[in-house]
Amino acid sequence: MAGTDKTQASPDGASPAVVLVNPQLGENIGTAARAMANFGLRDLLIVDPRDGWPNERALKAASGADWIIKDAQIHATLDDALKGFNHVYATTARPRGMVKEVMTPEQAGRDMHQRIGRGEKLALLFGRERWGLNNDEVSLADIIVTAPVNPAFASLNIAQAVLLVGYEWYKHDAKTLGQSTPELPALDGPGLQTPDTRPATKDELYGFFHHIESELDQAGFFKTPEKKPGMIRNMRNLFARAELTEQEVRSLRGMVSSLTRAHLKRKQKVEE
Amino acid sequence: MAGTDKTQASPDGASPAVVLVNPQLGENIGTAARAMANFGLRDLLIVDPRDGWPNERALKAASGADWIIKDAQIHATLDDALKGFNHVYATTARPRGMVKEVMTPEQAGRDMHQRIGRGEKLALLFGRERWGLNNDEVSLADIIVTAPVNPAFASLNIAQAVLLVGYEWYKHDAKTLGQSTPELPALDGPGLQTPDTRPATKDELYGFFHHIESELDQAGFFKTPEKKPGMIRNMRNLFARAELTEQEVRSLRGMVSSLTRAHLKRKQKVEE
Repeated sequence: MAGTDKTQASPDGASPAVVLVNPQLGENIGTAARAMANFGLRDLLIVDPRDGWPNERALKAASGADWIIKDAQIHATLDDALKGFNHVYATTARPRGMVKEVMTPEQAGRDMHQRIGRGEKLALLFGRERWGLNNDEVSLADIIVTAPVNPAFASLNIAQAVLLVGYEWYKHDAKTLGQSTPELPALDGPGLQTPDTRPATKDELYGFFHHIESELDQAGFFKTPEKKPGMIRNMRNLFARAELTEQEVRSLRGMVSSLTRAHLKRKQKVEE
Repeated sequence: MAGTDKTQASPDGASPAVVLVNPQLGENIGTAARAMANFGLRDLLIVDPRDGWPNERALKAASGADWIIKDAQIHATLDDALKGFNHVYATTARPRGMVKEVMTPEQAGRDMHQRIGRGEKLALLFGRERWGLNNDEVSLADIIVTAPVNPAFASLNIAQAVLLVGYEWYKHDAKTLGQSTPELPALDGPGLQTPDTRPATKDELYGFFHHIESELDQAGFFKTPEKKPGMIRNMRNLFARAELTEQEVRSLRGMVSSLTRAHLKRKQKVEE
């Protein structure tokens, strides 16, 4: 299936960003960039690349998809990388023991088009070579994407995972672009009606997480330190699932502030 | 997307054979075999491999899909390799100037299942690294399969082409068989994973609503009485959207109780 037509431009328009979390080999960053280019994905973010950046091997392995490597953004942490995004998909080999929506790449491709059509900014997370994404990283995502793979031979490398998700994205793109009047996608998915507001950014959401977690910490909610990470993860999953709007995040912060003052108010009433 | 469950057998039943025509590098034969294993394809035929056979590099690059390499059949010519097949698909980067039916991998996946179901023997042809299949080779096929790829960056290597066609084959396989991939989410909508818990009943959910609303009321959260019904509605919507589990409802109630005591704790600390 070789054969590139250099006279053709890459498809324009918004597309999901690819976020590689802690990749170990430059070669894999390069081949992932190639797979991105195959399917019209442009924005690459790399979190904590093991061998530093820039990486000559990544550029070499990209064999032609240089612009993706050269424009890649490097971030120290995943939190930081995700700040500007509205909706995040985590690719995993199989669904984790987490209460989170699970989609096939096909369903995700459809979902991404609906959301991009509504102006949302999307990120696709891919884990490190040996063991993928850890639970904390997955908990930052809204959706888990798992490809149907032969369970007896399920291992896909990073570039292959990017290839399958990119393919499903581009497939829907190609179908849409083929029409002379691209119609807006129907809101029949897990779509959100957002009158007078907009989906919260991850930055706003994480701000709320930090707020409620520090208040709960002070309130002694986390009784056993060993259980704290799991409790926080579950809480984050729960709120991530609600796909909060910016206004709702503000309301939730208001509630937390109110509740932490509740006892004081009650005390005052008794004293009056 | 790493993670192989060694206890699971590969899906049984008939599947299309992969025919690599005149491949040049052993590595590419090996990675193609891996991609086959990912999607339950077993039969590999190799026509005139440049570097002879057996090929140690092919075995090494297969990283685990050894049985495919070891059982591979070698043929001197494509004519000879195709003798036992009923229907042949040729993968090409773009439709040739040939009067022949062209399918996407998705359409081919569906077509293959129908034909396998009728007992036909199918072969998928993949060309050599540099220039794919020549016109004579394509003319031996019944169908041309071309993946929708960014025309400005259309080059896929052999393993990637096998991966996409194998993926589309297995996708339909998984849908049809169902039982071979028990971890596959429901196909009619995004599924929700609920480990060790169950969806909350409305009774439990409303109990939480009453709890948080009465606490917020006491805390003076609802400053203007006219706005209170709308604020409550918004809050209920937000939590309803998360489709809470029974365990999460209990956690949320615990958080509310904790937060209402937070101020007290803080005060105590100051006084100590």
